[in-house]
Amino acid sequence: MKKISDSTIRRMSKYFRSLEQLIKKDVETVSSDTLAEMDGITSAQVRKDLSFFGTFGKRGFGYNTKQLKKQIENILGLYRTWNVAIVGAGNIGRALTEYAEFKKQGFIIRVIMDRDPKKVGQQVHGLAIKDFKEVKQLVKEEQIDIAIIAVPGDVAQPVADKLVEAGIKAILNFAPRSLKVPGHVMVKYENMAVEMESLSYFLSNNH
Amino acid sequence: MKKISDSTIRRMSKYFRSLEQLIKKDVETVSSDTLAEMDGITSAQVRKDLSFFGTFGKRGFGYNTKQLKKQIENILGLYRTWNVAIVGAGNIGRALTEYAEFKKQGFIIRVIMDRDPKKVGQQVHGLAIKDFKEVKQLVKEEQIDIAIIAVPGDVAQPVADKLVEAGIKAILNFAPRSLKVPGHVMVKYENMAVEMESLSYFLSNNH
Repeated sequence: MKKISDSTIRRMSKYFRSLEQLIKKDVETVSSDTLAEMDGITSAQVRKDLSFFGTFGKRGFGYNTKQLKKQIENILGLYRTWNVAIVGAGNIGRALTEYAEFKKQGFIIRVIMDRDPKKVGQQVHGLAIKDFKEVKQLVKEEQIDIAIIAVPGDVAQPVADKLVEAGIKAILNFAPRSLKVPGHVMVKYENMAVEMESLSYFLSNNH
Repeated sequence: MKKISDSTIRRMSKYFRSLEQLIKKDVETVSSDTLAEMDGITSAQVRKDLSFFGTFGKRGFGYNTKQLKKQIENILGLYRTWNVAIVGAGNIGRALTEYAEFKKQGFIIRVIMDRDPKKVGQQVHGLAIKDFKEVKQLVKEEQIDIAIIAVPGDVAQPVADKLVEAGIKAILNFAPRSLKVPGHVMVKYENMAVEMESLSYFLSNNH
């Protein structure tokens, strides 16, 4: 398959959510114009993104919302569930164990780990915090697909190393640090301050 | 000023973080190639983004890291602090009151609100949860610039309406719902599942 850009994939996630909203309102077909408007982009971009995956609306008819949602679900691998491990039982890590959007999209938190002996054994929303020392065994036992790093920046790299060693191929990193990983591993970064900076840019330049 | 795209602004935030890392390692100048590599994009994109703001590296010399960081700081409005209110004292809202990246970038959480009388008055990391009914007064008293919505999806729109009524012009929305706001208000969306979906796409298509 052609190499699809990260931004196309991210937009697929947006289309998915827009389609969900439309289906909830019993809308059966949608034009690329409407999808574009809902997501603040051009309709040419929508058509281009979807054409990567061989999806074409009918001219004058648009896309069938349910079909398109199903197709995107397949593309993004949302037709199945994924086993997720969280490393770091701080505020963010704990909050993520109950994050409804994860469960809804099929990302099931199977285990939360920490290296702090005072935290190990504590319960977080029904999960007992496990010792990060056992990462290799836990990844295997729980058949973990995706790991979330929610530790302080200065320990993020050694944590990532251990995860890769344990066989993890996909990491979502909340620590504010770039991670070095082998080529077969994908890291995505989540930094909540980035969106805030788009807002401070807006406020600085429009008011 | 020319209309700058959201993705350019988001990349400025990334350059900022890359520059911070370089400065920490005492690197004094950086090429667009290196910045591009650190952020996984093309060097032409880096030069184009920076040229929007009249910033040009010297051919063969690159950019001075400290100067460029300072410039981006000014562009993004990070030379000052911003007063932030969180609405919703659930897991995410509580975690955000202590989110280190916010404080580091100058986003200061001044108040956390909830509508649940059982939560009002409780302490969260040194802040007493306030009643959302008092939003208008709190926004004024605390001179709030940016509001974060961390409530369930079905109440996000009425919360946004009240915030706009109270004079808020910039909103970061964690609720999984598109918000309708007047044209002078900017909303950014934070959905942690979106990055997870890039990972499930990767795992579905590469393994």
